[in-house]
Amino acid sequence: MSRIYNFSAGPAMLPEEVLMEAAAEMLDYHGSGMSVMEMSHRSKTYQQIIDEAEADLRKLIGIPDNYKVLFMQGGATLGFAMIPMNFMFNGKIDLINTGVWTKKAMKDAKLYGEVNVIASGEDNGFKKIPDVKSLKFSSDADYVYMCDNNTIYGSKFKEYPDTGDIPLVCDMSSCFLSEPIDVKKFGIIYAGAQKNVGPAGVTIFIIRNDLLEKPAPRPLPAYLDYRIAAENGSMYNTPPTYGIYICGLVFKWLLRTGGLEFRDKNNREKAAILYDYLDSSDFYRPYVDKDSRSLMNVTFRTPSDELDAEFLEGAKKYKFTNLKGHRSVGGLRASIYNAMPLDGVRALVAYMKEFEEAHK
Amino acid sequence: MSRIYNFSAGPAMLPEEVLMEAAAEMLDYHGSGMSVMEMSHRSKTYQQIIDEAEADLRKLIGIPDNYKVLFMQGGATLGFAMIPMNFMFNGKIDLINTGVWTKKAMKDAKLYGEVNVIASGEDNGFKKIPDVKSLKFSSDADYVYMCDNNTIYGSKFKEYPDTGDIPLVCDMSSCFLSEPIDVKKFGIIYAGAQKNVGPAGVTIFIIRNDLLEKPAPRPLPAYLDYRIAAENGSMYNTPPTYGIYICGLVFKWLLRTGGLEFRDKNNREKAAILYDYLDSSDFYRPYVDKDSRSLMNVTFRTPSDELDAEFLEGAKKYKFTNLKGHRSVGGLRASIYNAMPLDGVRALVAYMKEFEEAHK
Repeated sequence: MSRIYNFSAGPAMLPEEVLMEAAAEMLDYHGSGMSVMEMSHRSKTYQQIIDEAEADLRKLIGIPDNYKVLFMQGGATLGFAMIPMNFMFNGKIDLINTGVWTKKAMKDAKLYGEVNVIASGEDNGFKKIPDVKSLKFSSDADYVYMCDNNTIYGSKFKEYPDTGDIPLVCDMSSCFLSEPIDVKKFGIIYAGAQKNVGPAGVTIFIIRNDLLEKPAPRPLPAYLDYRIAAENGSMYNTPPTYGIYICGLVFKWLLRTGGLEFRDKNNREKAAILYDYLDSSDFYRPYVDKDSRSLMNVTFRTPSDELDAEFLEGAKKYKFTNLKGHRSVGGLRASIYNAMPLDGVRALVAYMKEFEEAHK
Repeated sequence: MSRIYNFSAGPAMLPEEVLMEAAAEMLDYHGSGMSVMEMSHRSKTYQQIIDEAEADLRKLIGIPDNYKVLFMQGGATLGFAMIPMNFMFNGKIDLINTGVWTKKAMKDAKLYGEVNVIASGEDNGFKKIPDVKSLKFSSDADYVYMCDNNTIYGSKFKEYPDTGDIPLVCDMSSCFLSEPIDVKKFGIIYAGAQKNVGPAGVTIFIIRNDLLEKPAPRPLPAYLDYRIAAENGSMYNTPPTYGIYICGLVFKWLLRTGGLEFRDKNNREKAAILYDYLDSSDFYRPYVDKDSRSLMNVTFRTPSDELDAEFLEGAKKYKFTNLKGHRSVGGLRASIYNAMPLDGVRALVAYMKEFEEAHK
């Protein structure tokens, strides 16, 4: 068996230790005589798994007691719809448009009211994160919506807007658990698991209680009401049991390897290796402005589309996968989430140098 | 490692071969150098996994070409909402009420129009499946809704209503792939995976094309529109990749072990062992009427609640788990899905006899 460096934007690399644990426990979880996949979600053993996952996540981030943690399905994409359905009380929100994901969120939110775009990177191809200091919020907005790390472009907010009493709702899908999070700045944080957390099919929501205490602004089907999910500990219906278990193993891995402080340090180190090299090179061009760069998704180009294609072809001999940029941006993208080791980034830069030497 | 007989109503036992395959491939799927969990859903390797899963399912059931197969999230519970959202064109449906699951479906459907209950087992505690021959349908109904196997009570339809031109929509969650299915009788068949198919977090929909060709009767968020899922091969957003892979392994297991014809024979044999014994005993009472019995969930009682509790306690020494009946029905329930071996049922009956001898 030879594991490779997988630079996928998500689903993405998971810690090898976690996969080994999952493989070892596949037929018999802790002497239960069954796989976690086969367990009744109403069993004591499974209740302990989900309770521990939540407790470990709370510990890892430091989630205050006045926030609920929910494990849901449908990805951030279902979140785009459920958040306005549940929390557009006055029927008006402010939104910071940083690309494809906020545009999808906007489209769904418009079914439930007015969306006021208070800043947009559209004019500059989403290469720059709007300045949060200069934002003006609508006093009657139900919430301010943003996407923290923009996987497609490789951009990220360096600070969060101060929205005062207006809840800040943040899609953190691709940077969640890559750095410490000050939860109390937010009304809602949510993230699809398939970047830093676990397998696709689990979406984590951290929601401030006061939002859940207000009745839903419209009649909602049971699955689509966060209040029902919260009242039932994410188990109104069968949750994605195995996915939550894997997330739990990842939380334990993060806790025993230095927590989010270490990840922050390690992720900065990994990104610096790549960005420092990109900045020192006349051959490669980074896609995003220097002050808007993501630590998770590093986007860049060679001098031409042909060389981009050649770069991808050449990457195969080192077994580097998924370095192609998103179709809407083109070029190249290296996603270097928590589970990507430093050595993977170093190996990529070595190949980039070799390629530059051969083609400049 | 000692595997046990797990009589859980779902999530439930999976074939040991499948779990062994999944464990062996956990760190390196077919020489790809990564786990299926870590694969980009846009990669060729993953596309092949989901395409094969669909092709195998089509082969297994014999799904006609004019039906789409979708792998979704949110369980049957999200289906309760999405089906009326997407297909209540005239705003009126007929529904056969066979218990908790159809009542939940009814509650959500009422948000989108009128629900006409054309038959109900409510008066007899859902111990009897309504006679489908005597049903009268509303000529302007968008569809007729039913739940085939009722996990909680242990009841199942022995034949399907002939609804003529009105599409028949069937929740098959707990009997899907336990027997052959004549798909063309239905407009929609759907099933949560966690009984006979795979891990919780995958829901399979089989939808006749003409239903998807009509525009949605109301504006829908992207995730909640089956048309968008169908146009994007279940990958408008990241699907539950690992869960679908496990379902695919189960489909291959079913194909190589005699398909649905063998399962039908095997499931009838397993159920007969239990029901024959129940019918021969004066000690145990089956919950459901003889002509309405499920082959998947066998519900019964001892002469008293105290003895039921003692039965469960005594089952521990044989490591039989999850034999407790659903809280809304009480008593005992043995769920014997595809992956429960004949020997598991024989061992349970041996214990039942022992318990009867000791307590009658």
